[in-house]
Formats: sequence, structure tokens, C-alpha cells
Amino acid sequence: MALNIIQPTLLLDKQKALNNIKRMSEKARLNGMAFTPHFKTHQSAEIASWYKTFGVSKIKVSSLKMARYFAKNGWENIVLAFPLNILEIPEINELAQKVKLDILIVNKEALIALKNQLTTAIGFYIEIDTGYHRTGIPPREIDLISTLIRKAKENQLLHFQGFYCHAGHSYHLDSPEDFKLNFQQSLDALNHLKSIFIPQNKHLKISFGDTPFCSVFEQFKGVDEFGPGNFVFYDLTQQKIGSCHYENIAVAMACPVIAIYPERNQIVVHGGGVHFAKDFLVNKNGQAIYGKVAAFAPGNPKGWGKPIEDIELTGISQEHGTLSATNAFISKTKIGDILSILPVHSCMTANAMGEYLTLDGEKLKMMK
Amino acid sequence: MALNIIQPTLLLDKQKALNNIKRMSEKARLNGMAFTPHFKTHQSAEIASWYKTFGVSKIKVSSLKMARYFAKNGWENIVLAFPLNILEIPEINELAQKVKLDILIVNKEALIALKNQLTTAIGFYIEIDTGYHRTGIPPREIDLISTLIRKAKENQLLHFQGFYCHAGHSYHLDSPEDFKLNFQQSLDALNHLKSIFIPQNKHLKISFGDTPFCSVFEQFKGVDEFGPGNFVFYDLTQQKIGSCHYENIAVAMACPVIAIYPERNQIVVHGGGVHFAKDFLVNKNGQAIYGKVAAFAPGNPKGWGKPIEDIELTGISQEHGTLSATNAFISKTKIGDILSILPVHSCMTANAMGEYLTLDGEKLKMMK
Repeated sequence: MALNIIQPTLLLDKQKALNNIKRMSEKARLNGMAFTPHFKTHQSAEIASWYKTFGVSKIKVSSLKMARYFAKNGWENIVLAFPLNILEIPEINELAQKVKLDILIVNKEALIALKNQLTTAIGFYIEIDTGYHRTGIPPREIDLISTLIRKAKENQLLHFQGFYCHAGHSYHLDSPEDFKLNFQQSLDALNHLKSIFIPQNKHLKISFGDTPFCSVFEQFKGVDEFGPGNFVFYDLTQQKIGSCHYENIAVAMACPVIAIYPERNQIVVHGGGVHFAKDFLVNKNGQAIYGKVAAFAPGNPKGWGKPIEDIELTGISQEHGTLSATNAFISKTKIGDILSILPVHSCMTANAMGEYLTLDGEKLKMMK
Repeated sequence: MALNIIQPTLLLDKQKALNNIKRMSEKARLNGMAFTPHFKTHQSAEIASWYKTFGVSKIKVSSLKMARYFAKNGWENIVLAFPLNILEIPEINELAQKVKLDILIVNKEALIALKNQLTTAIGFYIEIDTGYHRTGIPPREIDLISTLIRKAKENQLLHFQGFYCHAGHSYHLDSPEDFKLNFQQSLDALNHLKSIFIPQNKHLKISFGDTPFCSVFEQFKGVDEFGPGNFVFYDLTQQKIGSCHYENIAVAMACPVIAIYPERNQIVVHGGGVHFAKDFLVNKNGQAIYGKVAAFAPGNPKGWGKPIEDIELTGISQEHGTLSATNAFISKTKIGDILSILPVHSCMTANAMGEYLTLDGEKLKMMK
């Protein structure tokens, strides 16, 4: 590897990330949707700037801290895509003086607190729960939704934007039939709400965006704003779901080999929970895995290729990573080698690392 | 809660932490052992300073970055308690000019690389694997250990310090008999090595320190340096093992309630994987849990009490935490309330958060 790596380092293949952004922006364009990507995955002003060439001007973030960071870095149209934390209303008022800010509402208590404490114009989406069951209002609760929209109109600073849906159950649908059915049901439910509420709310939009559904399907009936987040990097979880191929995964952790144990088919690297975070998948033997070693790409000494079969990160502690490996792989590996490991969940891995090294040797900072 | 909390905040009960440090330092003193705590758990110069009143001068860290941080903050005797990453030797040479530095050796390749590239005096421990099987040399490999000690003597800058053992299998021994047996076997193995090698290495020491064994047992035959890390805070994992009581857990995450779903017995808080990290325990129903809600302590509006039965953090995503809760608890809880949640693994939680708020309202920074 031509890069000078001596410690766990999160490598970013910029070209792969750009291709991922391009593919998703193209899908938005073909469907006539605004492309409103979520920036919680990369959390980086420099990576954010790449989206501008694809016409992105409105973005989503998952915390007030992140909203402030991107506001400071020149983004003027931000959806704080998280259910309103009523304790943050004073800070939200302040930020909304600087940028066009939208937040999510999932219950009457938060809407009323916002209505009473708001001092600056703000937009809100009602989050709709089409089956994920994390937060949001079920689409059948028409009365509650009506009440929220009506109550909001009592304060002229409060602007109803539409319905927001993160259909995160797309991560947990094992059969292709269920996957497709739930996607259709989510869109149907959102379109039904749209048809009910658009007569009194001409400008209401449907905002939709989870990486699995947005990656797999081509048509998004009725969706106005299209904005997944993870797709910029993808990861092993998305590959397993079918959202991407291994070749689309744009980040890999470079880890130095510190110990080799042929007698138990293990290699230990510097690279642990503080680097990868601890999301896991289950492999064919029922073991938890935290990453897969990728081969170096032929002809590209700086990049990486596909995962090598059966070389998996099966143990992780704070700083150590333990790989289960074949004899053949172990016999080629030396103390001090650098291995590239594809992460299970790139959002959490990027968050843990706090910076990237591109294959061209450029360091990209993230929000601190 | 009298503290002004509006976002996920890692609360630190300083008195509990001081009591935890005092208890462990007392155990070291009664056994005639040097107290050499591991600082990977708190990663904070301010918390580190608390140990000084208990006579601590030699510390352990788990990365070069952490070694540099504590060196910069006035610590002059540091064990980089991680198997030597040979790519870091130039940086290690540099740091060893400023402080007394020891590292761990687990194989011949690393020792030879170090011997050949060393420019500054450095100490090393041989890490012994008494059953954890992460890194280290099994105690039966007397020949390899002899070779390492002999080879090291070829370079006068390289000083053999003794045997280092993190008996991390103490985290995975379910029966009290196994727990005790493995503790005894670890100490017996280390003492056997000591008896073999002390004639030629008068000053060799046994360095021992995992939180479960060090918390549960009172006598540590032959141990010279006694240094667990997690004990300063403890956590739900340690409580489950029996290392501590709930009352000893010195950190809790304060999280705002953002949504309540009585129909599915859930409360959603702001507090997710980027705050808690994602270590989990399995509860009595076989569910993964990432934390337990603690009651507010009677008479102390700023602190917290014991966990409330059956109020557990059973779901976690990047920023959201989902609590499973009883009807009784849900009926008392309001949007905007702050709940205190005890973490499963305090080292990873502290690392994710990057700072603490003491119950007196003091912010304590960590290494960045």
C-alpha cells in the first residue's frame, strides 16, 4: 500500500463515493424528486461539498450539533431529521435565524411546546411510521395528524412541510417478497395521507429515504424529496441486504497486524471497538462478524478489492481486532502488514474514527 | 434534576469514582503491590489527577495516542499495554525520550524489529496468555520466552520488565467455581514463570489487572503491579459478573424523552449508538439490552439510584434509544423528561461521548 499507514486508518475511495452519490442523484432526477441526502453518515463538510456538483442544496442531519456544523459550513436548508427534543427549542430558535430549518414532529406534546416557545420561522414534517416502529405516527391516525396540522396553524411562524418517512424496517425484511411488499405499503400509506391533506396544504411534500429501499427500487410514486444517507459509503450490512455490491463499498479500515496465531487460525490487528464500533452481522457459522478483510485490488496498490473468503473479524475489544483466517492466508501474512477491512456499519465506523484518508492521501476531517 | 441537561450527557458521580479508586488502591496496598491503573476507561487528564492522591505514578494505556496524551499531561511512567505495532517504532523512540515507556511483546518478530530500530531506552513486558486467548504467549512456551529475554539483552537500550497479564477470560466465566479456578490458574502460571526467570532477571515483575478478578478477590500471590481500568466507573457488565454492585456504577447517561408509545410499552429517548456505543447484555427474556434506567436517588436530586426493574434500553440506532417500559413507568413519564441510563460498557460509552459532566456541574474533558 503506497499510503503511509501505521495505525488504524479509515480509507475512503473517493471515486466509489462519487459514483454512489451520482447513481442516487440520477435516480432522484429520473423520478422528478428533489435529492435531499442525509449527512449523518459522513459528517464531513468536505464530503458534503461533493454533493453540490449534483445539485444538492437541502440536506438532512440527525442532531442539532450536526445541523449547526453544516450551517457553519455554508448549508442553508437543513432538515433536523429527528423528533423534536423540546428541551432544544431555544437552540432551534437560534439556529433558525441563520438557516432555513425544518424539524420532525411525532406527537402533540412536542408540537404544542414548539408552538408556544417559537420565536423564529421554522418548518416541520410529521414523521410517519409505516412499519419501522421506532418513532413516528402510524398512517391510520388521521385525526391526530389533522389536529397537529390545525394546531400548528395557530402560530404563523410554524410551517407544515409534509410527511417524513424513514422506513427503517427495510433493514429487517429477509424475503424479497416482504421487502417489496413493505416498500409498496409504505409508499401507498404516504400517498394516501398526501391525497387527504393536500387540498388544505398545497405545498406538502413526501420526504422518503432509507438506503435499502432507495437503492433497490427504481420508481418512487408520489415522493417529492428523496434522501437516504448510508449509500454514500455503503457497507457489509447493505451488501447483505442487497442494496449494493461489495465493489460499491467506499470505506475500509486499514489495520496493522500485531500478532499471528496459526495454531488457532487467528490474526490480531490493531483495530477495535473504538475504530469499527460494534455493529455485527452473523456469518454462515453463526458467529458474529465485525468486518471482512478485502484483498488489495490488482493494478491499484492503494485501493482494495473484494472480500477474501473466510477472512473475517470475529472478535473485537477496545483496541484489538481478532480475525479468523485460513491457513493459506495466515501463511502469507506478516507482523506489520496492513489489512483492509470492510466495515459492517459505515455510519457508526465513520463516527468512531472522526476522519478519513482518501486513496490520494488527503485527510478529510469530520465534525467533532 | 438540578443540572441543566438538554442533550445526551454522560454524568459522572465523582464520589463513586473516588470510592472505586480508593477501594482498589487499598487492595494494592494491603497486598504490597504497586497500584498501576489502566487509564483507557476514562481517557481524561482531570480524572487521572484524582489517582495521584492515592499514590499512583505508573499508569497503563492502550494506544500510542493515549500514551502521548498522558505524557503531555505530566505522567512520566507509562506502560503502552498493547502488543507492539512495529510500524510505530519511530514514534515510540520519540516518546521514550520524554517519559519512561514500557511496551508489550507477544512475538519474536516484533522484538527483533524493536531491537534493530530502537534509539532510546525502553522497557518491555512479555504478555502472557493465561486463558483469554486474545494476545500473549502461553505460559508453557518457556523456550520462546527464554529466547525473547536473551535476544533483548543484545541491545542495551531494551530492558525486560517482567510478565504482563490481562486475564480477560474473567469476563466469560459463568460459574463461580470456574471463575475462581481460572484466577488461581492464572496466578499459578505467572508465579511459575517468575520462579523460572527471576534468578537471571532480579527485578522482573508480574503485572496483573482485569477488573473482574481484581474486584472479586482479595489476595494476589506474587503480583507486583496491580492495575485494572474499568473499575473506576464500573458498569452493568461488571455488575452482572459480580465485580460491583449497582451502587458502585459511577457513570450514567442522561437522555431526554422524545416520544412515548404506551400501546407498545416503549419510550424513545435521544441517546443512541453514538452515545452509548453498542455493547449489550442479554436480559431474562433473551433480549439484547444496552442500558437500564436508574431511579433518581432519594434526597439527591442530581444523582441516580438503583435500576428500576424492567425499564431497559432494548433498541438502539445512531441517535435514538428505545426503552421497554412498564405501564406504571410510562404513565409517570413525560416528553422532555430526563432519564438516567446505566451503561453496559463504560469504557466504550466514555470513549463515544468524549466528555463528562460531574454531578456538581463540572465538565471534564477527555483525550480527542
